[in-house]
Amino acid sequence: MVVVHENNTLHHVVIIGGGFGGLYTAKTLANANVNVTLIDKRNFHLFQPLLYQVATGTLSPADISSPLRAVFRKSKNTKVLLGEVNDIDPESQVVILGDRTIPYDTLVVATGANHSYYGNNHWKPMAPGLKTVEDAIEIRRRIFSAFEAAEKETDPEVRRAWLTFVIVGAGPTGVELAGAISELAYKTLKEDFRNIDTSETKILLLQGGDRVLPHMAPKLSKVAEASLQKLGVVTQTNTRVTNIEDDVVTFKQGDKVQEIASKTILWAAGVKGSAMGQILANRTGVECDRSGRVIVEPDLSVKGYKNIFVIGDLGNFSHQDGKPLPGVAPVAKQEGEYVAKLIQKRLKGQTLPQFRYNDVGSLAMIGQNLAVVDLSFIKLQGFIAWVFWLVVHIYFLIEFDTKLLVVFQWAWNYLTRSRRSRLITGKEAFVQPQVFIETKTVTNDAPSTTTKAKEPYKVGV
Amino acid sequence: MVVVHENNTLHHVVIIGGGFGGLYTAKTLANANVNVTLIDKRNFHLFQPLLYQVATGTLSPADISSPLRAVFRKSKNTKVLLGEVNDIDPESQVVILGDRTIPYDTLVVATGANHSYYGNNHWKPMAPGLKTVEDAIEIRRRIFSAFEAAEKETDPEVRRAWLTFVIVGAGPTGVELAGAISELAYKTLKEDFRNIDTSETKILLLQGGDRVLPHMAPKLSKVAEASLQKLGVVTQTNTRVTNIEDDVVTFKQGDKVQEIASKTILWAAGVKGSAMGQILANRTGVECDRSGRVIVEPDLSVKGYKNIFVIGDLGNFSHQDGKPLPGVAPVAKQEGEYVAKLIQKRLKGQTLPQFRYNDVGSLAMIGQNLAVVDLSFIKLQGFIAWVFWLVVHIYFLIEFDTKLLVVFQWAWNYLTRSRRSRLITGKEAFVQPQVFIETKTVTNDAPSTTTKAKEPYKVGV
Repeated sequence: MVVVHENNTLHHVVIIGGGFGGLYTAKTLANANVNVTLIDKRNFHLFQPLLYQVATGTLSPADISSPLRAVFRKSKNTKVLLGEVNDIDPESQVVILGDRTIPYDTLVVATGANHSYYGNNHWKPMAPGLKTVEDAIEIRRRIFSAFEAAEKETDPEVRRAWLTFVIVGAGPTGVELAGAISELAYKTLKEDFRNIDTSETKILLLQGGDRVLPHMAPKLSKVAEASLQKLGVVTQTNTRVTNIEDDVVTFKQGDKVQEIASKTILWAAGVKGSAMGQILANRTGVECDRSGRVIVEPDLSVKGYKNIFVIGDLGNFSHQDGKPLPGVAPVAKQEGEYVAKLIQKRLKGQTLPQFRYNDVGSLAMIGQNLAVVDLSFIKLQGFIAWVFWLVVHIYFLIEFDTKLLVVFQWAWNYLTRSRRSRLITGKEAFVQPQVFIETKTVTNDAPSTTTKAKEPYKVGV
Repeated sequence: MVVVHENNTLHHVVIIGGGFGGLYTAKTLANANVNVTLIDKRNFHLFQPLLYQVATGTLSPADISSPLRAVFRKSKNTKVLLGEVNDIDPESQVVILGDRTIPYDTLVVATGANHSYYGNNHWKPMAPGLKTVEDAIEIRRRIFSAFEAAEKETDPEVRRAWLTFVIVGAGPTGVELAGAISELAYKTLKEDFRNIDTSETKILLLQGGDRVLPHMAPKLSKVAEASLQKLGVVTQTNTRVTNIEDDVVTFKQGDKVQEIASKTILWAAGVKGSAMGQILANRTGVECDRSGRVIVEPDLSVKGYKNIFVIGDLGNFSHQDGKPLPGVAPVAKQEGEYVAKLIQKRLKGQTLPQFRYNDVGSLAMIGQNLAVVDLSFIKLQGFIAWVFWLVVHIYFLIEFDTKLLVVFQWAWNYLTRSRRSRLITGKEAFVQPQVFIETKTVTNDAPSTTTKAKEPYKVGV
């Protein structure tokens, strides 16, 4: 029998999820007089805002990950538990992981959200989203394999499909992916191939709403769209995907139906609360919104359960201006800090005023020297926004793990325009050779190729 | 129809394999008046001597990989082709990839070697070897998951098996893995867990021969063994593994049969030439040695086929002192350079004297400040050997890809003793929770835990 915490008389806070919400809850409680158990499926915190740089070959997964045990090494009141929560029981105040039961006094649920395919989950294998390290490596594999396949392809139509990238959703992830693929195709890989011209690559960014980066000021959406156009990305707004099948995306703009053949379709649209949302709804009767996010009270607790909190992307907090807060890292971070403080106040018999999000603004990287920054007091674009983006991300990274490396790596990559991390790895790690037969007549002066029938070769092993 | 090379009148060198042998052949031919096609299954060259640092969480795969297309971007006579060669036909001088046929004038086969399980290939899933990036990530997953599982485990015997690491084979890879796991267990992870004491970890290094690092001077083997002992690694020589089953390794030293329960068994023994060796034997009648390596002529060519060369780990070159040259990077590199020069000489109607390996010595890292270096004129050990090891590896890395980063990363890791890259990723990315039920009685002053029957919880989604 393992004892979950040494001092059972202390208040026990169980946090599910080691993303920004859970991480900052635990960090804020690190020196408090409580026991903390942080449960995550993974042994690391992932700095998700930079995941698109892994997917496009600039950074390695480890560059944007912090092992949770290392983060909390010195917090002796904190236990990290690797596992997946299957259920909770709010009446007996326990969390269930497989056959294991963990009691809690306060529960913080911070399990985040996934992409929504709007009822078309069968599109997922054809159009993967970008949420996990594995997603990023799979997308990296698809992007770089597409250029390899195009290099080998003899049919111009199929080759065009290999060199066509469709990104669905023009939020920050979609915009950043589109910008990064453009830099790859038009700059980094320009001289790497012999049969194809990578500058023939088509990048199509489809957006359901009427502008890209809808969470930003309309002026910045325009700037972003113009920047994307400059990078060769074709943006199409007010457009909905109606089908994905056989490497063809069908989409509709008003009444106009279009089709495009593409071998690399990436999904960056929609929000769907993680499974814990439904579990909470079933167990506590709390209401979820259409996206499966838990509608929380002004203090981020679950209605009727003062000791259960939902923070980060899984929560729907609409007590500030009626609209739910966006699913971004600063919201999750501030919510985590708030809940941690509230728990400590309550232990002293006190309380806190309701949660208020201090909007620090938002920003998106489009490409080298191209970014947009939307702060409450100023809007930035172009080079200055790009520098600002860099500084903010470096600051954020350094805050919990001094990854100076990432800084060096960036500097290096921007100087050399290389993509060091463009490894094709994983299960299907290389592109199968295309059907193609060729022989060479070496005696001719002029280049000459002749086709010959495929001969049956017996392979020795 | 894709034309494999623009100028068909030029001599066409096809190189199979982008390891050290193939890479240096192509690099040496980069400015020669020939066309070169470099074929590899992967889109990157892997700096294999540092792969154990990926497997133990210090480096990321991209830190030790160079995209082949980037390496040969400026070599306009060189084509990189991603694919797997299924067969060759030495009579019509073609290489076959799937349904594709590539003609050659000269063929250089550099496809390397794998581990040999000495006829027990069914041990492989239980005791993986370290040859590819995927191997390294899988071993990394197993090592770090073992500590996580031990942290959760309640049965002391099973916990001991999770904290026992058995490494089979005490060549450089086995020694380096053992040293790195020791640093992990006794230093890096020491404060990271709450239920286990990672310094209870057992590391067993089994060696068939009578000493570790048998390719080095006997004096250095002794030094290495003493260093390993200092790091807590138990070395057992003259020992053969006779069975691996149900997380138990059975091994025999003389007549003494022993067993040890271990959840993490790593294989670093034996050499088996890659499949191309057998294909060559079938197609050209060339002889292979017991390990499946191709016995080559004094000029590294295949008997009877002056225009087919085998270099690197796949070749058995025994014309220097009767013993085959070892399967190490410097041999492959020098052989690649030799063959490239020979091809150019031949095109001028000249030739070269037979290949001679210029022994640059060998070295192995055991742990921080602990290494052994065996040069023809000097033997080094301890701190100075460690510094030498670092310098040599940095020099090698910089030679074809200025990865200054790796230097910074090392410096950082050695200063902080952190393992930033200890991500558990891949298919089975986290340890399943163990069977375990616990409840807590919060009203008691003294710590108290009581077991309760497992209740059936219905999961909402």
